[in-house]
Amino acid sequence: MMRLRGPGQCTANTRKPNLKNIVVSRPVRTGAVACRAMLPVGVPISVLTDSYKATHFLQYPKAQKMVAYGEFRQGFNKDKTDTRLVSYGMRYLVETYISRQWTMEDVEMADAFYRTHMAPNHTAFPFPRALFEKFVRENNGFFPVKLETLPEGTCAHVRVPVYQITAVGEYAPLCTFLETILTMIWYPTSVATLSRRARDVVEASFARTSDGGVGSPLVQSKLHDFGFRGCTGVEQSIIGGCAHLLSFTGSDTMSAAFYAQFKLNGGRPVAMSIPATEHSVMTAWPTEAAAMNNMIDHFGTGIYACVMDSYDYAKALSEVLPSVSVHKLSKGGYLVLRPDSGDPTEAVLMALAAAEKVFGTTRNGKGFKVIPGCGVIQGDGIDLPTMEKIALAIEAAGYAADNVSYGMGGGLLQKVNRDTMSFATKLNHIIYEDGRAADIMKQPQTDTGKFSLPGVLAVKRVDGVPTVFPADSGEVAPHENLLRVVYDCGPLAGVWEDFDTVRARVAAEWTALPKTSDNISASLKEKVRQQMALRGKVPALAH
Amino acid sequence: MMRLRGPGQCTANTRKPNLKNIVVSRPVRTGAVACRAMLPVGVPISVLTDSYKATHFLQYPKAQKMVAYGEFRQGFNKDKTDTRLVSYGMRYLVETYISRQWTMEDVEMADAFYRTHMAPNHTAFPFPRALFEKFVRENNGFFPVKLETLPEGTCAHVRVPVYQITAVGEYAPLCTFLETILTMIWYPTSVATLSRRARDVVEASFARTSDGGVGSPLVQSKLHDFGFRGCTGVEQSIIGGCAHLLSFTGSDTMSAAFYAQFKLNGGRPVAMSIPATEHSVMTAWPTEAAAMNNMIDHFGTGIYACVMDSYDYAKALSEVLPSVSVHKLSKGGYLVLRPDSGDPTEAVLMALAAAEKVFGTTRNGKGFKVIPGCGVIQGDGIDLPTMEKIALAIEAAGYAADNVSYGMGGGLLQKVNRDTMSFATKLNHIIYEDGRAADIMKQPQTDTGKFSLPGVLAVKRVDGVPTVFPADSGEVAPHENLLRVVYDCGPLAGVWEDFDTVRARVAAEWTALPKTSDNISASLKEKVRQQMALRGKVPALAH
Repeated sequence: MMRLRGPGQCTANTRKPNLKNIVVSRPVRTGAVACRAMLPVGVPISVLTDSYKATHFLQYPKAQKMVAYGEFRQGFNKDKTDTRLVSYGMRYLVETYISRQWTMEDVEMADAFYRTHMAPNHTAFPFPRALFEKFVRENNGFFPVKLETLPEGTCAHVRVPVYQITAVGEYAPLCTFLETILTMIWYPTSVATLSRRARDVVEASFARTSDGGVGSPLVQSKLHDFGFRGCTGVEQSIIGGCAHLLSFTGSDTMSAAFYAQFKLNGGRPVAMSIPATEHSVMTAWPTEAAAMNNMIDHFGTGIYACVMDSYDYAKALSEVLPSVSVHKLSKGGYLVLRPDSGDPTEAVLMALAAAEKVFGTTRNGKGFKVIPGCGVIQGDGIDLPTMEKIALAIEAAGYAADNVSYGMGGGLLQKVNRDTMSFATKLNHIIYEDGRAADIMKQPQTDTGKFSLPGVLAVKRVDGVPTVFPADSGEVAPHENLLRVVYDCGPLAGVWEDFDTVRARVAAEWTALPKTSDNISASLKEKVRQQMALRGKVPALAH
Repeated sequence: MMRLRGPGQCTANTRKPNLKNIVVSRPVRTGAVACRAMLPVGVPISVLTDSYKATHFLQYPKAQKMVAYGEFRQGFNKDKTDTRLVSYGMRYLVETYISRQWTMEDVEMADAFYRTHMAPNHTAFPFPRALFEKFVRENNGFFPVKLETLPEGTCAHVRVPVYQITAVGEYAPLCTFLETILTMIWYPTSVATLSRRARDVVEASFARTSDGGVGSPLVQSKLHDFGFRGCTGVEQSIIGGCAHLLSFTGSDTMSAAFYAQFKLNGGRPVAMSIPATEHSVMTAWPTEAAAMNNMIDHFGTGIYACVMDSYDYAKALSEVLPSVSVHKLSKGGYLVLRPDSGDPTEAVLMALAAAEKVFGTTRNGKGFKVIPGCGVIQGDGIDLPTMEKIALAIEAAGYAADNVSYGMGGGLLQKVNRDTMSFATKLNHIIYEDGRAADIMKQPQTDTGKFSLPGVLAVKRVDGVPTVFPADSGEVAPHENLLRVVYDCGPLAGVWEDFDTVRARVAAEWTALPKTSDNISASLKEKVRQQMALRGKVPALAH
């Protein structure tokens, strides 16, 4: 049974005799960024959780240790035929929030806030002031928990824990204080998964219709991120935009492109874009032809795009496009036509037909038409099903995938939510004050999809598939455990990889996984069965 | 015709002889926060736009002046029967991003980024480096535009411009550079509108079933913000959480509660919450009764909530609740039962029936039952239609609205997007290099809902309804114009009001507005007709 250290020591990273399978690391503060006081957003770190979590320290039974974990419980948009996910985004949360050093000022600001946050009939809103002060004084202000996560970009199936958090000793009741922030991993993981699934659509259409097949260098730019303005703020654009860049290079979300390049990749470029018009540009000129001719003057030797629906899309294709074609051809570059309203599939087919009429086509080795020097990007109304519909429609019309790109905006960065893949954090293990250990399992009768996994967890590849084991079963050696410690009562050095490495992991692991798997080990299933039998039969603990 | 100043002067705030209806303010830098270099998020201000916008300075015709505006084009979720909106959130965008002083370091970082952001066949990604350097040198780094917006919390109908932006002289091509950031106003406005509509649902049920009616002090706490963890990041939680607090006081999103109180309201409290359990708390104890008894020990004299579905919701209501009732009653407080799975309406009715069985009911003056000392909060699966369904179901079962609260999480803060109310920014006016002025109007045949309004705009109340006029029609005196200058080539002093004032505005204006209105003035309609006739007939401008 674990022994508590003397008061004042953060013990989450000390010896844990009964938990063989957790990788234990020492906190290395050298080189860690010491961020103090108010967060950039103007709010102290001490209130970055749901109100009720501030009250939980009084609500848990007295304990020596508590462990919780987070998992996705369903495939993207409830897809049961493909339950893969791209686990991504923990680095941002750890570096920005979890690793931040608290100060006494944070505690005082929390106090000023909580004193006035109470509902009627409460004299003050409770919060664990003494514990906050303790780790500010005794642990350099670092939050006293241990956090394990999957390596960034790991591909796995749902139900694999994407993080596990441990708090011990006096700090045990703080185990779930960070849950609100950690739960935000739902977002980058959902976008990364959506974007990678979109790449599946692109690759499939290239395999069928393009000479280059799935290996074509065009594939990586075929889904372009149009989502910056559809985000709720800049922070979201960075998090979601980076998640997209794991599977594609095309992005207009420069916040993310900059962040991925300079913050995550040592300055090596990650994203690219092209000069392109918007309606303001097209309508600022007396005619659309004037706007297009100006584009050709400036960018005609490269790749450039023009939006075509400012007034009359059909007329722009049938009259404006031919009127600039000689000028366009004289420069030799690549013109991308952008519809922006109407039925997406129809709009793409109209543009292809118009471009073919003006510039002709060549036929590729697979018998599909390729328009020289001109293509289409559909950036309105794009989601996964619409991408698939368009890909099939252009194929049926005889065009190769090379001719069409997609722009996804709100569909990529905003039209996802925590229910998209059903993310939740749950307590899975507790060691009570008297030393008795208990595995914890939520098992609501009213929604069996919401059950949680009992006991401390470890993840090991079985035939390549990340599979969930009880950490105490002896089946997962520390070096095999995909849950790696990334924070241990303080930031750790050397736990994060550059963006190129993470990208390469996604590329390698996604296609290597079967679309679904039975990824709960037999030993964990047995533990679930025991828990189900156990419920209600535990002797009452005095409170 | 407007005259350009000599090079190097920011002229957006100088005399504009032809534009009588724009309020002209002087920039006051005293007291303005000078934020330098990297943004908190770690990305320079110089890349906070869509990639293509960096290229637009080369794409516009040469101009002395350009004006653009942003508007919502549809009611919430396409509702045609109620097209009201609560305009909110510009203060955050202006204070956080628009007012930020650029530095040469920002320009250099932009340069390093743009040099590597190009697609194949471009030698470098173009961006307006010379213009950036110019306003860094000559305008203290403040972005050289004038921005007008509706006062925070203004209630209006769709199609009313929520902002208008003007750039003049050499800076004219930068008019739409900030569009990406400004467009993010879609988010707080959508949440504020959703939350206010939810208050309509609550008020209607109170009017029908509660002694207090719409004036009951309970109304303001009946929709509680559960959305923090369902946000994509902390910034979103602050922006969206504050928008909700315009219409309610209940929130567990402490980031927003803190921000609204200390950043926007001089320290005066804005939001409240209560101690409440989560599954981790309930399952950490050997029995749910033990968890509830502990809650009663700590919080039994006040208001407190317990989640009831950890194992078997029906059994928790029929067995656990009665088992703690004597203890609960001995403290005299108010227990809130929280279902968290299953059908929301069914779950609420089950809890009410169980609570009635244990605690009884009294009958109020309207003949509806009120359970003493116990109620229900439904926080799973809540959106506007579900709230309405539950409100009607409890009424049909004879219960007063007093008994039930709602918690909305992802439904409140995340399940909205830019299409929810169809937000867009468009160019509306240009003065070309040669002095000729043109009103601009996008009018796509393929989607008539996407047309924009031509010419510089002003907004004036007509019979209380904010109505859109041409700014040059002489119909709107400067003091009548609801579009107020909040930034003019630099931050302005005294343009923002405290949160209490904004809240009071929403409360006063929302119910005073008809649900729909014809809010385009006759003179603007005439201008639209002229534009439609004009299209294609403007003489070509040499490019």
